[in-house]
Amino acid sequence: VARITLDELARRFELELVGDGALGVERVATLSGAAAGALTFLANPRYKKQLAETKATAVVLTRADLGACRTAALVAADPYLSYARIAALLHPAPHMAHGIDPTASVAAYAKVAPDAAVGARAVIGAGAVIGPRASIGPGAVVGEGCTIGADSRLEANVTLYAGVVLGRRCLIHSGAVLGADGFGMARAPEGWVKVPQVGGVRLGDDVEVGANTTIDRGAIDDTVIEDGVKLDNLIQVGHNVVIGAHTAIAGTTAIAGSTTLGKRCMIAGGVGIAGHLNIVDDVVVTARTFVTHSIDAAGVYSGSLGFDTQRRWQRRVARFRRLDGSKAGDKDTDGGDTDG
Amino acid sequence: VARITLDELARRFELELVGDGALGVERVATLSGAAAGALTFLANPRYKKQLAETKATAVVLTRADLGACRTAALVAADPYLSYARIAALLHPAPHMAHGIDPTASVAAYAKVAPDAAVGARAVIGAGAVIGPRASIGPGAVVGEGCTIGADSRLEANVTLYAGVVLGRRCLIHSGAVLGADGFGMARAPEGWVKVPQVGGVRLGDDVEVGANTTIDRGAIDDTVIEDGVKLDNLIQVGHNVVIGAHTAIAGTTAIAGSTTLGKRCMIAGGVGIAGHLNIVDDVVVTARTFVTHSIDAAGVYSGSLGFDTQRRWQRRVARFRRLDGSKAGDKDTDGGDTDG
Amino acid sequence: VARITLDELARRFELELVGDGALGVERVATLSGAAAGALTFLANPRYKKQLAETKATAVVLTRADLGACRTAALVAADPYLSYARIAALLHPAPHMAHGIDPTASVAAYAKVAPDAAVGARAVIGAGAVIGPRASIGPGAVVGEGCTIGADSRLEANVTLYAGVVLGRRCLIHSGAVLGADGFGMARAPEGWVKVPQVGGVRLGDDVEVGANTTIDRGAIDDTVIEDGVKLDNLIQVGHNVVIGAHTAIAGTTAIAGSTTLGKRCMIAGGVGIAGHLNIVDDVVVTARTFVTHSIDAAGVYSGSLGFDTQRRWQRRVARFRRLDGSKAGDKDTDGGDTDG
Repeated sequence: VARITLDELARRFELELVGDGALGVERVATLSGAAAGALTFLANPRYKKQLAETKATAVVLTRADLGACRTAALVAADPYLSYARIAALLHPAPHMAHGIDPTASVAAYAKVAPDAAVGARAVIGAGAVIGPRASIGPGAVVGEGCTIGADSRLEANVTLYAGVVLGRRCLIHSGAVLGADGFGMARAPEGWVKVPQVGGVRLGDDVEVGANTTIDRGAIDDTVIEDGVKLDNLIQVGHNVVIGAHTAIAGTTAIAGSTTLGKRCMIAGGVGIAGHLNIVDDVVVTARTFVTHSIDAAGVYSGSLGFDTQRRWQRRVARFRRLDGSKAGDKDTDGGDTDG
Repeated sequence: VARITLDELARRFELELVGDGALGVERVATLSGAAAGALTFLANPRYKKQLAETKATAVVLTRADLGACRTAALVAADPYLSYARIAALLHPAPHMAHGIDPTASVAAYAKVAPDAAVGARAVIGAGAVIGPRASIGPGAVVGEGCTIGADSRLEANVTLYAGVVLGRRCLIHSGAVLGADGFGMARAPEGWVKVPQVGGVRLGDDVEVGANTTIDRGAIDDTVIEDGVKLDNLIQVGHNVVIGAHTAIAGTTAIAGSTTLGKRCMIAGGVGIAGHLNIVDDVVVTARTFVTHSIDAAGVYSGSLGFDTQRRWQRRVARFRRLDGSKAGDKDTDGGDTDG
Repeated sequence: VARITLDELARRFELELVGDGALGVERVATLSGAAAGALTFLANPRYKKQLAETKATAVVLTRADLGACRTAALVAADPYLSYARIAALLHPAPHMAHGIDPTASVAAYAKVAPDAAVGARAVIGAGAVIGPRASIGPGAVVGEGCTIGADSRLEANVTLYAGVVLGRRCLIHSGAVLGADGFGMARAPEGWVKVPQVGGVRLGDDVEVGANTTIDRGAIDDTVIEDGVKLDNLIQVGHNVVIGAHTAIAGTTAIAGSTTLGKRCMIAGGVGIAGHLNIVDDVVVTARTFVTHSIDAAGVYSGSLGFDTQRRWQRRVARFRRLDGSKAGDKDTDGGDTDG
């Protein structure tokens, strides 16, 4: 970790410096946990009261918060964004050593760039292409014919089925599975008949996929994740979903098959999106909403209820149940349990 | 991939051919993406308008849609089912090469059928039995004493704990975990005391388990997944659950411990089913429903609300909160946030 | 498995014996499935009718249930807890053989205790410390600089990123991922800018983490799981979450970043907890609740609706939609679909 002066940071990131530019920082910290040598930031008003007490060397903040600051300050239009850029400079992502670990298993007809890294126990299938400076973590499995673009990184124990294509600078976290069969079955008298899933999965550049997230391969055409999409952990992306560029989706959200999401959408956690829908660009969906039909106008959409003490909630649910016009004692009425 | 004539397809799958039976197809495609040599299908009326424009060589469709078709047609009572069978013929599942990869780790007392396949870096525990033509993907771990039936397939990085039993022709997708401890704990003054989970997991024939799905071992008796059950990705199946034959469950659904599901049920995505319930045969549960009590009659069950613009939704939630008879300003009333 | 007399069990676990103390048991069983030599228990009144028919050698039960028991009995204040302790004696957890499997990959600067076990194909990064009697399952990956406390156990295919710290007697189930990047991004004109996640993950003693559960590393400070916490499968724990000692959380629950949960909480399955909240000690949240704001008093909280036949449910939803004062035919009203 290098020490960088505030003068240098102000110049490089086009920020206004208030204080001694010769001071240096070498790591990031929280407002409350910072010590000398640390840079911190104030973006969430929830933490403003900690500003007066911080022991950081410098704080990135807005002009509006400057008055309450007793340390050196870097004034930014968007402190969180400027903090992100500075933090990336102070804490660069670790790099795996070049080359193929002797315990990795690389098929004869795979091509691994000389400056790529393949970790211990990783498995690279026949015909796979691992681009320049890409890294494949320990235990990761790259299926036959996959393409991994330059500077992409698969963390440990990632699984790519055959034919998955990643652009440049993608980051795939551990346990993610890309290219498993979509859930396609036809009903027959003897049971379910599997519909072969012959499409692929294609990721653009700068896509991040969270831990244990699953992205199914297409039934016929490909499942497509466009440039700059960010997916959190434990997300399910069904077959033939298309996610538009720079859309971000938080954890445990699920998107059913053949739905298209627009660009720059923000989908919060625990959301469900039904299949075969079309969601336009710049849609925001708040947490735990179930999107049941297409959305044709940008805006913010919601569908969750709050919560309350169990006692009060049960009373409310009892009245909700009577909204259908039935009375409390009606036969066959849902018991309304809330705790299973 | 072989080329097959329409005459041959009509004969083999008992379909009525309309058009030139000497034409051949060699792959499947979508209506809109098809080129010469491709077979496609029309099942969802949403896509009917594409029928007139398709460049496919042949379309599988119902008699009712035949009038709008300008290519050769195979008329089927259930076009999706017939398509599934034809696609399986045109796109057979890839087969791993026979034999044990030299980098696999097979315990001394495991039995691997001579025509089974064990992939790179796979680990087979002592006493495990791998049946004829079964295949174990790269990095998969098969615990001690497991039994894998004939023609079953474990994809890369699947984990089976000790003693898990799979029938024939099962397909287990990457990241799935079968046989982890059920969530059983007893409360003691010093904290939680773990209840040993000594049951197992048993799958019948033709079961498919999606990527990163978890099926816990039983507390005492086994967790049982009967023949022909199809599970999508990221599903949680608690200890001692029994899932009846030919039931299909979509992604991110969770079933709590000791619940029994009947045969031929269809459970949509994002559903929760509480523990210790009994659900009869032929029950359909729509997406995002929370099943809080047993179901004793076949039929369709629902429990999700829709969604709306945030503004309209918040107004609705505010009124919902007052269903308990309280007024807006009452102390301790839930704030009704919808976006956390 | 050893045979133990009822006299010995009564003495060791301070239970009252009713019946022949010379009888022995050697395994556990359910009331309905038990045969001679088995010990079983009655805790859930749902199963009381099976008591008269059981073929078990002995039953652990309350004094209130003693009258209906026809076998030897061990009378306990909390039969489930006493059963848990006896079952642990009869069915000790399997132990991996000491030592490092020759196919494991252990970095030069890692320290593995002589009586620890490292399984086939496991990968231990540089600087990692594996404590006494700890075991690392097949295919598990322990990142650089991790610390695994004494007697902790990682099952097969677990992934720990760099710097994760586990206390003593932890149990991490297969597919769990600890220490992946938290979901932190800042919006910039050109798209999302990743915020480096430089914090860690720290687990106390006696923590259990379920299969395919994900616990993200902190953005700056650590994500902290205190002593005795029990997490079920497929749970998402966001960056900088703190979970207080002896809290238990059931499957598929998700906790967004920077939320603090108190001690001894019980969070049921499918719950969502928004970010930046504070939940006090001894809070119970029932299944499928969405916790949208902080909770400052111990108690039971709920937020789920029931379910019903689709027909009745749709009628109810239609009225719910009109709670905002709009009428059925209003433009732009949510269609209220429940099955997507």
